[in-house]
Amino acid sequence: MEAHPTAGPLFTDLYELTMAAGYHRHRLHDQRATFSVFVRNPGLKRNYFVAAGLEGVLAELERYHFSAEDIAYLRGLDLFPPSFLEYLGRMRFSGDIWALPEGTIFFPEEPLMEITAPLIEAQLIETFVLNTLGLGALIATKASRCVHAAQGRPLVDFALRRTQGQDAGDQVARNTFLAGFAATSNVRAGKRFGLPLTGTMAHAFISVYPTETDAFRAFADTFPQNSVFLIDTYDTLEGARNAAVVAREMKARGQTLQGVRLDSGDMVALSRAVRAILDDEGLVNAKIYASSGFDEFGIDSVVKADAPIDAFGVGTKVGVSADAPYLDIVYKLVRRGGRDVRKLSPGKVTLAGKKQLFRLRDDRGRFREDIITCRDEEVDRAVKLLVPVMAGGRRLASAPPLTALRGRFEEEFADLGDRYKDIHNHAAYPVRISPQLKALQK
Amino acid sequence: MEAHPTAGPLFTDLYELTMAAGYHRHRLHDQRATFSVFVRNPGLKRNYFVAAGLEGVLAELERYHFSAEDIAYLRGLDLFPPSFLEYLGRMRFSGDIWALPEGTIFFPEEPLMEITAPLIEAQLIETFVLNTLGLGALIATKASRCVHAAQGRPLVDFALRRTQGQDAGDQVARNTFLAGFAATSNVRAGKRFGLPLTGTMAHAFISVYPTETDAFRAFADTFPQNSVFLIDTYDTLEGARNAAVVAREMKARGQTLQGVRLDSGDMVALSRAVRAILDDEGLVNAKIYASSGFDEFGIDSVVKADAPIDAFGVGTKVGVSADAPYLDIVYKLVRRGGRDVRKLSPGKVTLAGKKQLFRLRDDRGRFREDIITCRDEEVDRAVKLLVPVMAGGRRLASAPPLTALRGRFEEEFADLGDRYKDIHNHAAYPVRISPQLKALQK
Repeated sequence: MEAHPTAGPLFTDLYELTMAAGYHRHRLHDQRATFSVFVRNPGLKRNYFVAAGLEGVLAELERYHFSAEDIAYLRGLDLFPPSFLEYLGRMRFSGDIWALPEGTIFFPEEPLMEITAPLIEAQLIETFVLNTLGLGALIATKASRCVHAAQGRPLVDFALRRTQGQDAGDQVARNTFLAGFAATSNVRAGKRFGLPLTGTMAHAFISVYPTETDAFRAFADTFPQNSVFLIDTYDTLEGARNAAVVAREMKARGQTLQGVRLDSGDMVALSRAVRAILDDEGLVNAKIYASSGFDEFGIDSVVKADAPIDAFGVGTKVGVSADAPYLDIVYKLVRRGGRDVRKLSPGKVTLAGKKQLFRLRDDRGRFREDIITCRDEEVDRAVKLLVPVMAGGRRLASAPPLTALRGRFEEEFADLGDRYKDIHNHAAYPVRISPQLKALQK
Repeated sequence: MEAHPTAGPLFTDLYELTMAAGYHRHRLHDQRATFSVFVRNPGLKRNYFVAAGLEGVLAELERYHFSAEDIAYLRGLDLFPPSFLEYLGRMRFSGDIWALPEGTIFFPEEPLMEITAPLIEAQLIETFVLNTLGLGALIATKASRCVHAAQGRPLVDFALRRTQGQDAGDQVARNTFLAGFAATSNVRAGKRFGLPLTGTMAHAFISVYPTETDAFRAFADTFPQNSVFLIDTYDTLEGARNAAVVAREMKARGQTLQGVRLDSGDMVALSRAVRAILDDEGLVNAKIYASSGFDEFGIDSVVKADAPIDAFGVGTKVGVSADAPYLDIVYKLVRRGGRDVRKLSPGKVTLAGKKQLFRLRDDRGRFREDIITCRDEEVDRAVKLLVPVMAGGRRLASAPPLTALRGRFEEEFADLGDRYKDIHNHAAYPVRISPQLKALQK
């Protein structure tokens, strides 16, 4: 795994810098402040969220500094006092961070990260932190819904061509894998994050050869151990028969066709007809892959119809989380200079103070209830979910392998009740606020 | 403006590389091929699209090459023949590209780019080209709808915290500006693309001071010429009165409050009440900015209600194009080895052959009809929209300034009929296929 590219401190809204200049001028910049990150859920489109993106935040903050070029650009805006720009040029991130480990399941209004740092530092990183944790959770959550709907059938990420930009492409590959996808088509993400890669052919390959059968033969000749034939370029059933012809030729050479891919049409009817054709030809081990605009709803529908689809290629709709393409993720000041702080805008309440999040489980280990408490409270037989990950600007542990994060998610998800996994219906998981934290809000 | 960072040739789906290996093995890789890029419009959520992203494509392709590290990674996959990897290591992009200039308005099924190159090169760049042109048009189109709805009121991009990743944040800033936004809050994009920046304060700034009035005073003291007070932290009307107090103090010092910002609540009622408070205090030039989850629909609604809002901060919903978060953009082989090629999957037809796109205008210069033709056709009194932008892998002109692209869009948009600008109702712009191109499809 290679290092994350740096976003740089200019990846920020201008108002973070103007506020920072105000704090600096009034000698408030060094006051210790705590900001809390959480997700609101006004549309109720998700029953739970999956934490992801923390590694990107920590890698960035360890290297956080304004370059001479950054400062020169800011100076050129003719907006900031020179003393402030000198301060920025020397600044590093020196804060403490508590966060949910990646792969943790969380619920609306629960803190997923709390940052305690000199006010100016904590303010300046807001935009970056929200962007990174927001995209991470957006995609990991969407992907987890697909994995659940697929009931054990492998899913692969095909979204790269339509993700919202390059960074999104890589984050989609990483965070769908974290949530249980088997592989990605994204080669750059494969290299960057050590992900399994997958992919064989598109329609263009078929069109290049005089006949579909010629194209299949040419591909099998190049990749005798790694062939999945795309069979819908002309006619899917005819394509299945052509694939069977070439599969038999491969068999005679001691090779095995991995399977065929359906990319358009009625997935239930076609997969049944294609399965019959392959079985009739003795190709009972050739798999059927399907990749036709799937998301959790499409997968759920064909799985419930018992379509003989062995694996899904999942693209655009998951890569942009099309039914809910952003999280209402926010970053709120909750404590400053030794005093707890709330914002009270209409309909938008923030819980003051440094917090901890506890999860209670039932006798079988299933999630029962969460309790948001003050940071230093203890709750009997409950696990603390926010853990310290950075102190004084240094991370407290090296980055865990992605497979470990994926394992954590898998374990967590097994203990989440079925009603919260339901992709169609809203169910509000019980989240309580401790009496001590409630008292603090007065 | 600084150079675009390189995506690199590994920003691709694995199947582009496996197909490329197949072409290479069968000596088809050098055959001249043409691919056409166009947008389908199954959901009918857009009446037109705005071309954007071309500069990103050209900058990447001019520098396109596999590094030694890239090749080493691919070798490690144990999938590709050594001769193919050697070929890749030497490969550069040598193709010719015709494209719609950025800022051009186009319609579903119309070619926005055609790439003619050795088959292997044109195949390998597919994923990158689709991602870049797709995100560009997605955002420029969404932004243009907002600009239209705002009827002359300035819009600024506040989306950075919730765009789908870092690259998206910069592309949103650039492409909303291209479509007529006045400025962005994204400092990095401001530096990278030379964009005007905007931003003053968030709620945290207010919370840091003992009273709202203290916070306004502190900000005015730091930025006497650049203050917009956020007035909804506690109570919007009380906030307006506090802003007026500080504005009068500023006036006495010869300074001018730029305005106030509303960020929550009923925008129509609050803007009227706040306008009255400011006017009563003689602050008739203080502007009212509003930034509460706006997109084209929200803007349209408050503009039609005649709310006294002077400018809009536009964030998340535009930054991810929330009502239609992806384009159905495709890249199809249309010619190869001197022969025109079509794909005929159910419901998905592609126009074979190299093409040109003509636009006919009426006497007043308004768009009347488009005609898709063969590349070498001529149409009387019609403008050719596809222009050569790259030949032999070299761009044919240096990158135009973004303000020029913005100017082109503005001119184009003025000539688009009102019914196509309607954000609520679908209207299909007439697009014809020339008899010669029709004949070719037989």
